[in-house]
Amino acid sequence: MKQDVKKGIGHVSIGDSYEGFLLIREATKGLTSNGKPFLTLMLRDATGEIEAKLWDASKEDETLFIAEQIVWVAGEVNQFRGKAQLKIFSICPAQPTDQVKVSDFVEKAPVERERLIERLTEAIFEMKNPTLQRIVRAFVKKYQESLLTYPAATKNHHEYVSGLAHHIVSMLAIAREIHKLYPELNKDLLYAGIILHDIGKIKELSGVVSTSYTTKGKLLGHIPMMVEEIGIMANEMQLEEEEEVIVLQHLVLSHHGKAEWGSPKPPLVREAEILHLIDMLDAKLNMLNRSLEKVKPGDFTERLFAMDNRAFYKPLFEK
Amino acid sequence: MKQDVKKGIGHVSIGDSYEGFLLIREATKGLTSNGKPFLTLMLRDATGEIEAKLWDASKEDETLFIAEQIVWVAGEVNQFRGKAQLKIFSICPAQPTDQVKVSDFVEKAPVERERLIERLTEAIFEMKNPTLQRIVRAFVKKYQESLLTYPAATKNHHEYVSGLAHHIVSMLAIAREIHKLYPELNKDLLYAGIILHDIGKIKELSGVVSTSYTTKGKLLGHIPMMVEEIGIMANEMQLEEEEEVIVLQHLVLSHHGKAEWGSPKPPLVREAEILHLIDMLDAKLNMLNRSLEKVKPGDFTERLFAMDNRAFYKPLFEK
Amino acid sequence: MKQDVKKGIGHVSIGDSYEGFLLIREATKGLTSNGKPFLTLMLRDATGEIEAKLWDASKEDETLFIAEQIVWVAGEVNQFRGKAQLKIFSICPAQPTDQVKVSDFVEKAPVERERLIERLTEAIFEMKNPTLQRIVRAFVKKYQESLLTYPAATKNHHEYVSGLAHHIVSMLAIAREIHKLYPELNKDLLYAGIILHDIGKIKELSGVVSTSYTTKGKLLGHIPMMVEEIGIMANEMQLEEEEEVIVLQHLVLSHHGKAEWGSPKPPLVREAEILHLIDMLDAKLNMLNRSLEKVKPGDFTERLFAMDNRAFYKPLFEK
Amino acid sequence: MKQDVKKGIGHVSIGDSYEGFLLIREATKGLTSNGKPFLTLMLRDATGEIEAKLWDASKEDETLFIAEQIVWVAGEVNQFRGKAQLKIFSICPAQPTDQVKVSDFVEKAPVERERLIERLTEAIFEMKNPTLQRIVRAFVKKYQESLLTYPAATKNHHEYVSGLAHHIVSMLAIAREIHKLYPELNKDLLYAGIILHDIGKIKELSGVVSTSYTTKGKLLGHIPMMVEEIGIMANEMQLEEEEEVIVLQHLVLSHHGKAEWGSPKPPLVREAEILHLIDMLDAKLNMLNRSLEKVKPGDFTERLFAMDNRAFYKPLFEK
Amino acid sequence: MKQDVKKGIGHVSIGDSYEGFLLIREATKGLTSNGKPFLTLMLRDATGEIEAKLWDASKEDETLFIAEQIVWVAGEVNQFRGKAQLKIFSICPAQPTDQVKVSDFVEKAPVERERLIERLTEAIFEMKNPTLQRIVRAFVKKYQESLLTYPAATKNHHEYVSGLAHHIVSMLAIAREIHKLYPELNKDLLYAGIILHDIGKIKELSGVVSTSYTTKGKLLGHIPMMVEEIGIMANEMQLEEEEEVIVLQHLVLSHHGKAEWGSPKPPLVREAEILHLIDMLDAKLNMLNRSLEKVKPGDFTERLFAMDNRAFYKPLFEK
Amino acid sequence: MKQDVKKGIGHVSIGDSYEGFLLIREATKGLTSNGKPFLTLMLRDATGEIEAKLWDASKEDETLFIAEQIVWVAGEVNQFRGKAQLKIFSICPAQPTDQVKVSDFVEKAPVERERLIERLTEAIFEMKNPTLQRIVRAFVKKYQESLLTYPAATKNHHEYVSGLAHHIVSMLAIAREIHKLYPELNKDLLYAGIILHDIGKIKELSGVVSTSYTTKGKLLGHIPMMVEEIGIMANEMQLEEEEEVIVLQHLVLSHHGKAEWGSPKPPLVREAEILHLIDMLDAKLNMLNRSLEKVKPGDFTERLFAMDNRAFYKPLFEK
Repeated sequence: MKQDVKKGIGHVSIGDSYEGFLLIREATKGLTSNGKPFLTLMLRDATGEIEAKLWDASKEDETLFIAEQIVWVAGEVNQFRGKAQLKIFSICPAQPTDQVKVSDFVEKAPVERERLIERLTEAIFEMKNPTLQRIVRAFVKKYQESLLTYPAATKNHHEYVSGLAHHIVSMLAIAREIHKLYPELNKDLLYAGIILHDIGKIKELSGVVSTSYTTKGKLLGHIPMMVEEIGIMANEMQLEEEEEVIVLQHLVLSHHGKAEWGSPKPPLVREAEILHLIDMLDAKLNMLNRSLEKVKPGDFTERLFAMDNRAFYKPLFEK
Repeated sequence: MKQDVKKGIGHVSIGDSYEGFLLIREATKGLTSNGKPFLTLMLRDATGEIEAKLWDASKEDETLFIAEQIVWVAGEVNQFRGKAQLKIFSICPAQPTDQVKVSDFVEKAPVERERLIERLTEAIFEMKNPTLQRIVRAFVKKYQESLLTYPAATKNHHEYVSGLAHHIVSMLAIAREIHKLYPELNKDLLYAGIILHDIGKIKELSGVVSTSYTTKGKLLGHIPMMVEEIGIMANEMQLEEEEEVIVLQHLVLSHHGKAEWGSPKPPLVREAEILHLIDMLDAKLNMLNRSLEKVKPGDFTERLFAMDNRAFYKPLFEK
Repeated sequence: MKQDVKKGIGHVSIGDSYEGFLLIREATKGLTSNGKPFLTLMLRDATGEIEAKLWDASKEDETLFIAEQIVWVAGEVNQFRGKAQLKIFSICPAQPTDQVKVSDFVEKAPVERERLIERLTEAIFEMKNPTLQRIVRAFVKKYQESLLTYPAATKNHHEYVSGLAHHIVSMLAIAREIHKLYPELNKDLLYAGIILHDIGKIKELSGVVSTSYTTKGKLLGHIPMMVEEIGIMANEMQLEEEEEVIVLQHLVLSHHGKAEWGSPKPPLVREAEILHLIDMLDAKLNMLNRSLEKVKPGDFTERLFAMDNRAFYKPLFEK
Repeated sequence: MKQDVKKGIGHVSIGDSYEGFLLIREATKGLTSNGKPFLTLMLRDATGEIEAKLWDASKEDETLFIAEQIVWVAGEVNQFRGKAQLKIFSICPAQPTDQVKVSDFVEKAPVERERLIERLTEAIFEMKNPTLQRIVRAFVKKYQESLLTYPAATKNHHEYVSGLAHHIVSMLAIAREIHKLYPELNKDLLYAGIILHDIGKIKELSGVVSTSYTTKGKLLGHIPMMVEEIGIMANEMQLEEEEEVIVLQHLVLSHHGKAEWGSPKPPLVREAEILHLIDMLDAKLNMLNRSLEKVKPGDFTERLFAMDNRAFYKPLFEK
Repeated sequence: MKQDVKKGIGHVSIGDSYEGFLLIREATKGLTSNGKPFLTLMLRDATGEIEAKLWDASKEDETLFIAEQIVWVAGEVNQFRGKAQLKIFSICPAQPTDQVKVSDFVEKAPVERERLIERLTEAIFEMKNPTLQRIVRAFVKKYQESLLTYPAATKNHHEYVSGLAHHIVSMLAIAREIHKLYPELNKDLLYAGIILHDIGKIKELSGVVSTSYTTKGKLLGHIPMMVEEIGIMANEMQLEEEEEVIVLQHLVLSHHGKAEWGSPKPPLVREAEILHLIDMLDAKLNMLNRSLEKVKPGDFTERLFAMDNRAFYKPLFEK
Repeated sequence: MKQDVKKGIGHVSIGDSYEGFLLIREATKGLTSNGKPFLTLMLRDATGEIEAKLWDASKEDETLFIAEQIVWVAGEVNQFRGKAQLKIFSICPAQPTDQVKVSDFVEKAPVERERLIERLTEAIFEMKNPTLQRIVRAFVKKYQESLLTYPAATKNHHEYVSGLAHHIVSMLAIAREIHKLYPELNKDLLYAGIILHDIGKIKELSGVVSTSYTTKGKLLGHIPMMVEEIGIMANEMQLEEEEEVIVLQHLVLSHHGKAEWGSPKPPLVREAEILHLIDMLDAKLNMLNRSLEKVKPGDFTERLFAMDNRAFYKPLFEK
């Protein structure tokens, strides 16, 4: 096997030479300013991604180098308009004998799948309210596979394989501690809200890799879709008369916090407000930790769009 | 029978004396600044309402003069803080022999119930798309009685008995003409959206008289509730695979036009945009016509809260 | 004549070859990244427009290929940054013998000029209020030629030859039907407002083709300019004492609906509010219909800047 | 003559007794909570105004004590809901023999009328551009009397007799100095803009005393009305072809600075921007100086609505 | 001793009779609508407060019943404009022999002072960064007494004796748990930010009881005042060269999260963002828990101004 | 010496040839679309700056042509994407014998340094309040050198050598005249506020040439930094008890006028409001005068980002 790469593509620096297998996430045709065809390739492995240009692309290249194809690449990392770009010296499609598979080239949650399902199960087991517990259990069963593989978003936070479950499990851990400090909170309701709040994304998003929005997702959005699903599920389980159902639907409906952010009702139940705050806390820490990891003490991160376009400073004294 | 009133309470002027039957819509106890009990009564008939104070109210008065009670009143119309107030000279509860009933004292749509159902039926009959037609027919059947009696809102526009049906029927008439002028529009989709867009109000609001919001209405709102109901109905009718269902849910979801106004998705289908515009057009004309009717040419109406607090001018040259 | 084009430039697809006459709407000089001169041409016919690059442009090319010149072009349609671009194989200026003229290459209203003037005349004829009718008649006479050729805007809606008259005539048709449904409306006032509301654009915009803003247009805007013109016209006709004049000026002044949108007073007369709504309804339908026409069922349109940057969905079930 | 008042009503303190002539600016009838009629009188002299209640008002009182009537009053200053209120011991209408007249009871600019006209004339005399000078001269001549008596607003700033001229003359003084420091400014244009910018208020407001808005003022506003008047004046003087006219109209149109504040175009000419800033500077200083005059060092003023509801602090060290 | 009250004034219901000692928090003179003097008293004990009116107040009453005076009151709880009001039957000042003191009548944190100082000390002891620890220790020493008695605000959240320390200690507990879940966080920095973030309130607010804003507080606000104090303290401790000082000042400066909320810089350091979120979380839970405690399951709380004026629902199923 | 340039680089037009010395302000490496290295150079002299591309840059070029290097250039001015670009024919680093120095290539205030210090001294000399005068004098002494060389900003207004002092001196001149017209103003306070308001920029910005923001500047900003510095200075001078200090800190704190613009408190003292207005007036005139100087009568300036992106018109009649 040709591979002898030292570090992943997410960790290379300007000037490094690179050799190894990468997955084509996206391939776009273009014309240079003097009319010659080229391909822009977004190449990735489990550690990150990089843009590359394939100059003077032939018709054959256009059919070989397409999205979801794994390729072997040799090249050098240059800078283009302030961002790293891979200059390709040599590229060819991976062969069956290379024994590489797509799932090796995507980013995954830093927690194992087994551990995620275990923690989710523990939380459901802690719940005492039978109505809430039954509904949550039904949804986890219905969507188990997707729940364990879907990302929590297409970008910004937890945008990796199992990101959805990772986000839920982190939020449950925060909720458990907040509940200990403020025992007035209804833990069962908070847990139920956390586990179900983003499950609508399974129908809003197209899948685990190269994730985009479905037409239904664009026209309705995951929040109203999940409110509807809870209603249908409650009907099937003959729980539609229980107040827990309405309050749980309210938690899902209001978890974006404001109308402008997609929640037609703001949180009007204590646990709805706390669900919204825990959701923000975990999403922001996920974004911040991953961005700060990439910069040296004394530097600022790149601007984070989902955090009001702020660039964050990593103090020197943390060295 | 004691009654000899010339004009309804909605048409009296400052200085008029008044005698007649009125319905107590609301009764609140108070204390004067020197500690004496009094009752504030909101009194109404089919033409409008007026505030009245019952001074030195006895304990018996407090049990006699309560909401939903019809009373015979004699008094004089005074002005208090810029608004008309009825000074009560004499008041007593109506007797069975007076043969007055609550339904005579509430405002009603200016179109007869039979005419409303007839026009609604015509519109459904015009529809050609079987999926849309079946869903609409199912909802009209399910909610027929409420649909024909509910107001369209608690205040601002069509806030009277049969206001919901009146609003729907007026919108259908506009839609029919707009469709003739712009035949690219899908009339069936537009009709279906118009008929269903506010049906969620039947569960959001408490009833036909003294209307308030239900707890479910406050926590979820009529828009997500109706999106959910369409989903459940489509499941029952085995239409859940039809694209019409999603698009119809989108029309309902987006009919307030903007996130800040309660639609988590803005209109993203042509007919959704037009539904929103026709809804505004009919609601605004209903408010404007009823307000302008109360003022003389050359004057301004009172400020209309739901129209950005504007006061509208009635030109003199219209005389 | 060399022409044998099958379809207009507005209807070509990526990969098509193209041959035919086109009008240069705009020509800009540029330098490639290695310093060679080229021309960027915006080429159009009556069906739409396309960008083209003329590489290695000589000094002579720069004088030949300028705005308002008709050219014969042969080339192929490619994609560049997600948009269609014409790759030019051959280009030369049209000759007198080709018998092509500029007016054949601009987009026109889908309604004939004669039909537009006819409908406008009918509407004026319907009016009964002599003051309003006289003012409207005077303006239509004064600006007749421009009124029948100007676009309604430089972009977004009705941005084609006779767009202004087309917009007015469509709005009159809606107004006629709305008036039938809500007879409280003053039809004469509404008609007068519709016909005059955008006539200020004749002085705000530079002309029918390659339309831009005049200095006066930039400094004052069509709304205050038209309010002023109505005042001057009323003076000349000795109508300055009539209340109709002020109310008509108010309709023009307020027709954008809000201060932020250029109306220093919001609508404060019923017909002013309705004028604003009908204006939006017709403008939006014009934009939506023309955008949706370009996409297939199941797809979304490009983002429409003037509609809050939304992309609209064309349902599959409409097929 | 009965009068022996020491200080004006604008300078009395809680607990003071008061005796003297006052003008009734406004009289409103009311009913006490136990149904007895009373009058609320807004009483004023040249130094300020105070509210008073006349309890147990007879029918005769209601006809005697009306707006614009001068009365002799004896009473005591009390506090009511945090504001001073005059408790009336005795009140009677002034008699012809009292030789008091309305103009003695209204607030006036602190600069004499003769001095105002003198300074205005000086400024016009300084102007060199004949077009601008002629237009300004024509307006000053046309409106001379009103210009010298109107307030600049109904409230907030310069809301007193001759307030409009006082505001203009103060702005001219600032402009003269700013022009010396920044000689690039076109002084003639700036002067013309200052003199004309608020003249539209003469038609927007109803008059000098008890000022309210005219119907035309409410429907059009002083800005578009003045843009129109300049156009008409330029036509009459055959100056309509001069660019100065458009630019001057732009200065008037844009002097509120932003669309939300009533200027459909923001300042797009240097002198328009400076006009806007000088207008704000003078208006704000007028408000601040008059509010701070009423409080002691170490205190805050009442909240000033027109200055974003701020209360301003008067430093102690200024003593 | 006369006292035999069963429940605190914060727990009485409409219709209850009441007898006991209360503290006058505020006393305001007024006049009834027929000119008679009365006193409005805000009366409180450790459980809450109630408004009362003392009718026909004599000059002596006005000097007896003033702020900070403890009184013995007998009366009945009535309703006035939707709020509870105490109708006074009998009132007299407390006597020395009654052995009641002001500190018994104010609300206190639900955690003992000793426990608060203990937890604060523990947190400082956990810190490892010497610069941060020294600064925090210096401030806790400098302000110890105030820190343990001041409220965290004049209203909305933790507005009671020791509220500031209670808020800090609760936030430290949350921070400790969040840090365990996200060990990337710099705990020392977060602790230092939490302990110091609101200490500026000690100079912004006037004191522990009847708290208002100081002039310095109104002109500068607690955030810039504390940034300055940290600078001065660092200078005195010769730590001004340490980066920790700037970053700590940044945490204090940015802890309101947005410019509109009083932070001229938004959080630009990870721990600053988390400090802001923990501050919101604890403040909101404090408000929510105290409001919900006052209502029955199935009801909504009153509107909470500091939470966007929302009324929160207490679910029935929690019973 | 090789130089024979006629006009500065800020005054060249498209098509001009150019020869002369220029300073490299910034140099960035890039790759052409076919992978060849080039340098983008921002070149400047005292009159302005221009972009240039150096094609086929060698490794040696990359080390020779770096920021702060002076070079001799021959070339031609072309247009690229609507902006002027220098096409380089020949370029070489300046030699010691060329006797050119960096300070000759930067823009400077149009007023001499000696004149600036003289006017500043005069203003301080005019001040009578000893506390304010002592503080101002101390700061001017502490920062004298930086105060006379720093720009007032990195872009938009007074962004040149000595821009800070130029801005202060211009504002003092306006303040002197405004004070004459409105003698109620406290001139000493206004002067002190003007002189100190932006001194925090000396620590917020990195230096005089190639100015950027310091880390401390990014985390705290010049406003809180200066409030802190005044506090420290007052402590050192034992003036911390004087009210002047707080009020002066308030002037600095509030001089941006609104929370959204970086002032956590809005102006709450008369002189603070006027400081804010004079700051805007001088900054805007500086921007406008310099932009309008570059365009011909009848044209519009480029869009000015700091003035709400407006393009300003230069009237023709000013010719």
